[in-house]
Amino acid sequence: MGKFSFMYDYAEGAHPNILKALGESNYVQQLGYGEDKYCEEASAMIKDIINAPDADVYFASGGTQANLTVISSALRPYEAVIAARTGHIAVHETGAIEFTGHKIIEVDTVDGKLTPKLIQPVLDEHCDEHMVLPRMVYISNSTELGTIYKKEDLHLLSEYCKRNNLLLFMDGARLGAALVASTQDLKMSDIKDYVDVFYIGGTKNGAFLGEAIVILNDKLKTNFRFSMKQKGALLAKGRIFGVQFSELFRNGLFFDLAIHADAMANKLAKGIREAQYGFLAEPQTNIIFPIFPNSLISNLEQSFSFHHWVKINNDKTCIRLVTSWATKEEYVDKFVSDLQK
Amino acid sequence: MGKFSFMYDYAEGAHPNILKALGESNYVQQLGYGEDKYCEEASAMIKDIINAPDADVYFASGGTQANLTVISSALRPYEAVIAARTGHIAVHETGAIEFTGHKIIEVDTVDGKLTPKLIQPVLDEHCDEHMVLPRMVYISNSTELGTIYKKEDLHLLSEYCKRNNLLLFMDGARLGAALVASTQDLKMSDIKDYVDVFYIGGTKNGAFLGEAIVILNDKLKTNFRFSMKQKGALLAKGRIFGVQFSELFRNGLFFDLAIHADAMANKLAKGIREAQYGFLAEPQTNIIFPIFPNSLISNLEQSFSFHHWVKINNDKTCIRLVTSWATKEEYVDKFVSDLQK
Amino acid sequence: MGKFSFMYDYAEGAHPNILKALGESNYVQQLGYGEDKYCEEASAMIKDIINAPDADVYFASGGTQANLTVISSALRPYEAVIAARTGHIAVHETGAIEFTGHKIIEVDTVDGKLTPKLIQPVLDEHCDEHMVLPRMVYISNSTELGTIYKKEDLHLLSEYCKRNNLLLFMDGARLGAALVASTQDLKMSDIKDYVDVFYIGGTKNGAFLGEAIVILNDKLKTNFRFSMKQKGALLAKGRIFGVQFSELFRNGLFFDLAIHADAMANKLAKGIREAQYGFLAEPQTNIIFPIFPNSLISNLEQSFSFHHWVKINNDKTCIRLVTSWATKEEYVDKFVSDLQK
Amino acid sequence: MGKFSFMYDYAEGAHPNILKALGESNYVQQLGYGEDKYCEEASAMIKDIINAPDADVYFASGGTQANLTVISSALRPYEAVIAARTGHIAVHETGAIEFTGHKIIEVDTVDGKLTPKLIQPVLDEHCDEHMVLPRMVYISNSTELGTIYKKEDLHLLSEYCKRNNLLLFMDGARLGAALVASTQDLKMSDIKDYVDVFYIGGTKNGAFLGEAIVILNDKLKTNFRFSMKQKGALLAKGRIFGVQFSELFRNGLFFDLAIHADAMANKLAKGIREAQYGFLAEPQTNIIFPIFPNSLISNLEQSFSFHHWVKINNDKTCIRLVTSWATKEEYVDKFVSDLQK
Repeated sequence: MGKFSFMYDYAEGAHPNILKALGESNYVQQLGYGEDKYCEEASAMIKDIINAPDADVYFASGGTQANLTVISSALRPYEAVIAARTGHIAVHETGAIEFTGHKIIEVDTVDGKLTPKLIQPVLDEHCDEHMVLPRMVYISNSTELGTIYKKEDLHLLSEYCKRNNLLLFMDGARLGAALVASTQDLKMSDIKDYVDVFYIGGTKNGAFLGEAIVILNDKLKTNFRFSMKQKGALLAKGRIFGVQFSELFRNGLFFDLAIHADAMANKLAKGIREAQYGFLAEPQTNIIFPIFPNSLISNLEQSFSFHHWVKINNDKTCIRLVTSWATKEEYVDKFVSDLQK
Repeated sequence: MGKFSFMYDYAEGAHPNILKALGESNYVQQLGYGEDKYCEEASAMIKDIINAPDADVYFASGGTQANLTVISSALRPYEAVIAARTGHIAVHETGAIEFTGHKIIEVDTVDGKLTPKLIQPVLDEHCDEHMVLPRMVYISNSTELGTIYKKEDLHLLSEYCKRNNLLLFMDGARLGAALVASTQDLKMSDIKDYVDVFYIGGTKNGAFLGEAIVILNDKLKTNFRFSMKQKGALLAKGRIFGVQFSELFRNGLFFDLAIHADAMANKLAKGIREAQYGFLAEPQTNIIFPIFPNSLISNLEQSFSFHHWVKINNDKTCIRLVTSWATKEEYVDKFVSDLQK
Repeated sequence: MGKFSFMYDYAEGAHPNILKALGESNYVQQLGYGEDKYCEEASAMIKDIINAPDADVYFASGGTQANLTVISSALRPYEAVIAARTGHIAVHETGAIEFTGHKIIEVDTVDGKLTPKLIQPVLDEHCDEHMVLPRMVYISNSTELGTIYKKEDLHLLSEYCKRNNLLLFMDGARLGAALVASTQDLKMSDIKDYVDVFYIGGTKNGAFLGEAIVILNDKLKTNFRFSMKQKGALLAKGRIFGVQFSELFRNGLFFDLAIHADAMANKLAKGIREAQYGFLAEPQTNIIFPIFPNSLISNLEQSFSFHHWVKINNDKTCIRLVTSWATKEEYVDKFVSDLQK
Repeated sequence: MGKFSFMYDYAEGAHPNILKALGESNYVQQLGYGEDKYCEEASAMIKDIINAPDADVYFASGGTQANLTVISSALRPYEAVIAARTGHIAVHETGAIEFTGHKIIEVDTVDGKLTPKLIQPVLDEHCDEHMVLPRMVYISNSTELGTIYKKEDLHLLSEYCKRNNLLLFMDGARLGAALVASTQDLKMSDIKDYVDVFYIGGTKNGAFLGEAIVILNDKLKTNFRFSMKQKGALLAKGRIFGVQFSELFRNGLFFDLAIHADAMANKLAKGIREAQYGFLAEPQTNIIFPIFPNSLISNLEQSFSFHHWVKINNDKTCIRLVTSWATKEEYVDKFVSDLQK
């Protein structure tokens, strides 16, 4: 790891305030398995900021665990979830959802985003009991391609889902980055109007670990702790989630960290654009996909690590750059400057 | 939580050294999902201390997750695991193992410990393809009743399992407490001689979270990371496990913490015995089961919280007291002194 | 198979009337997957005879398939089913229910029958989300020990289940034998008053294959055909069930066949009693459990095959004798006569 | 059902010879669960005709059950199966494979057939433990589009699978129709050279029910009966499979029936072609996909029932016609003649 990493937004530990909060609360005896006062506090903060006092809030240690617990808890055995083919559950969770017994119906998209128009053919096709019953739509905001769902996107999806008896589940592993994007009009307090359940990612926005699952639809609330325990998602020292999320939402730290991450990606994107290079998808959040000549990529890899995303042609490749709450601006500057070498 | 809690060994946070180590490594960029240098270091330390250089070491966030990942990875669909009826997987994991598709064959025991004699009737009964195929024996060391498996216990079980084509899996959520018990002759380096797979509990011995799964049997090693990812057990910032376990094993902290926990329980047990009260099971580790008059229990509950375990008769109840690395001796002393009130 | 078999009630094929009906309907083109007119007809007959016009009726090819489809369709993932330890799902289905993700909580019984008193400790023990949620009670009528649930038994169980939010599911693989037992007061038309779902066994009462699942509780009806298809329980030529069950219920054949089976067992039991031998459980239906000296068993095995059930002591063994719709009286007579040799 | 049905190849019952054989063997007492002499006999015949004396043969009641039992038995939890998007397991089994925990990786094809070239991108994409591990290729012969795999197709696929550690599983629900197709060069005895496991469909070729699963790869044989029992696939009166398949293979009836089905489809196709209509896919077996003007379709539906497959444009629709062992030539002639009306 001698090079600076733009590989992902979880290359570093946790924000120092979080470490400090963990230290300060360390010897206070608490109830186990998420029934501690820190989880209570964090839950109250979250319900306040999303303006949904009746929501249920639970904490899971990672995105895959949140996804598999939510989906397997919401669906009956023969029901399926619809996802973009690029969706995290579709490709990058080693069949976690299928292991819980449910089919993922994958839909091709241009930009990682689902729309009613893209979903309709799935409903048209699935017409009887010889096929799974589509019952949930899974979206990621921001998406795996760094794009975002704005208010109108969610409004249309939400209306469509309600009309078609589909639950809408938003994976918010990178919700912070999505909410503070410069082109975004969605606010934390808007989400409750659109989705049945979502989660707020801590791991990729300054926490050591933790995703806050927020259940808005009453029907999905029943016995959710049973589902969590059964999937290994209840930590004995659940306080570690409560302390972290309380800290993230106490003074807006959650948003500050996301703003930094997006700003660093924007700066990278600006430099790349000025150096006359293009992108696979329009940069919007903390994940961007520039297309570079292979020779330039080799040069950049002297000092930086990042993922090769897809080969464009024999000479050019699309790479993925990810920034985080901890990305140092000097490395961003160096990256942009290295484009000229 | 105004009272001092003897409810469990996860009422507090992590040992300060661990917090410190997390702080010091915080900004070092690392690979994700457990491929960081801290996990490598902790893995090497563990392989060294157990004297099994060829072992594979992985880290999971809790006992249920470790259990379900190990068991579902080791067994074919129709194979079953044998456990004591008091075993954690049998009663306290909300059907986590069954959710992965496997039956737990439960065996009554006196003290939470399985023996070849107790297992044999299970093998006698399961004779053809109309019944599940018993293929693994699950034991906890120390057990859920605070008792321990010593070398001879494990030797006999291990030989029996080998003769009968059974895998032996040891849940070590409280392995520290088991190893430093005053009556124990088993050492960390002996375990490799007896079991196919086991784990070393961090959560209940000074870590924030984490169980180190150690796979000794080569046949169980294949593609284990696939199993972990599929079950949501790979954390993006897997480093949090590496840092903690490195710290626990750097200078014997793991054992020191367990020694303290057991010592506090021993002191409680000594005081209880001197006050002429008996126990459900002979105290050996950090969990003890004294039997008290109900009136005394009411008095003790003015200052302490603990679980009521089982009603003995109309006048007496067995309670459970658990000590930990963080238990303060002054409260132990006060508890003993309160017995005389 | 030179010996006459008292091993089970599925050693022969189907009653000739059924074969005839299959032949007569053979070339009539029908819709597939159970939507044919024969299934409709059989379903109507069954709803009529059980006096439950709103019931839903489906046909599965065997008991294990019926059990796993009903149970996995009715329960949420963390919910469990309570069964007698001798229950078919508990021991003789190779973990089929666990494969669908659900724990079976096994209860010791004297005679294979569950009662509220036997179930209550299960509810007492399962008190929070660290344990599975008991949600269904599974009974077999007649039981695997040949005993029967009468009206009062079912009444008490049913009231208890309703008070405790438990579904009551009756496995009727041998329902015919149970209903025509001489001590029985339960009628086919009474069942609807007590259970949420049950099935009527065809395989063990004269059909080639087939169990008629009857869903009485509206909440269990939703999308049941999806569950069946997903479990491989919908046959393309589902008509084979419709034709058979129509024949069984057209002129009371179902009951006539069961009466014969029970009568043959009664005659065996009478002869055994007169020869001064005892039983493990009081003979009531077509399965009886006499206790014989080992030497007598060896003699009987010259001419008959049957299962050894359990060793009583060094000299005596309990065997299992099963009669069927096809049991020939001459072999019953010979068996009784051989007792005297 | 007043109209003649070209909807599927399971609209009628069983071939009369099969009914006769069931009648003749009806009272012979046999062992249960497929251990009877008829299953033994059928198994021996099948091993003989496929020239694979070491194969294991089992009987399941339908295609979905065969598919889910074979796949879940062969794969470890994180392993996936690759199938054509039109494959039966992908669309028409209500998520049966996913219910057993496994992802189906769906591949677009032109004609329902997989090739190494189509599979390679799947292997390229699935590169680490964050994704499922592709481990099996599922093909149907004939396919759901009526096309066939010939020797060279299977040879190429087989070589490719071996090089890439992929198991090759052939769904032969319509294997009869595939083998007797006029363009086919594959023989029953060739199959063993190419695949690890396959099944021979009885339901769609003259039996009441039954698919004969043939396991060629030794590693897939272990404890297969446990898998069958666990999935509800072992019938108590398993003899019904043995009797049927013995009859099918005694004097070549299996092939005769398939020849009739294909011949009827060929005659339909010839008439359609002569009437100047085209097809979605080249007719090869007993399923054909003509494209007709909507007005013609309305006319045909006066006398015939069939599936509308896909809308071609506002004026034309592709329909699906299926013939069977029982299709009467007079209706074929009438259909062709009705094209001219």
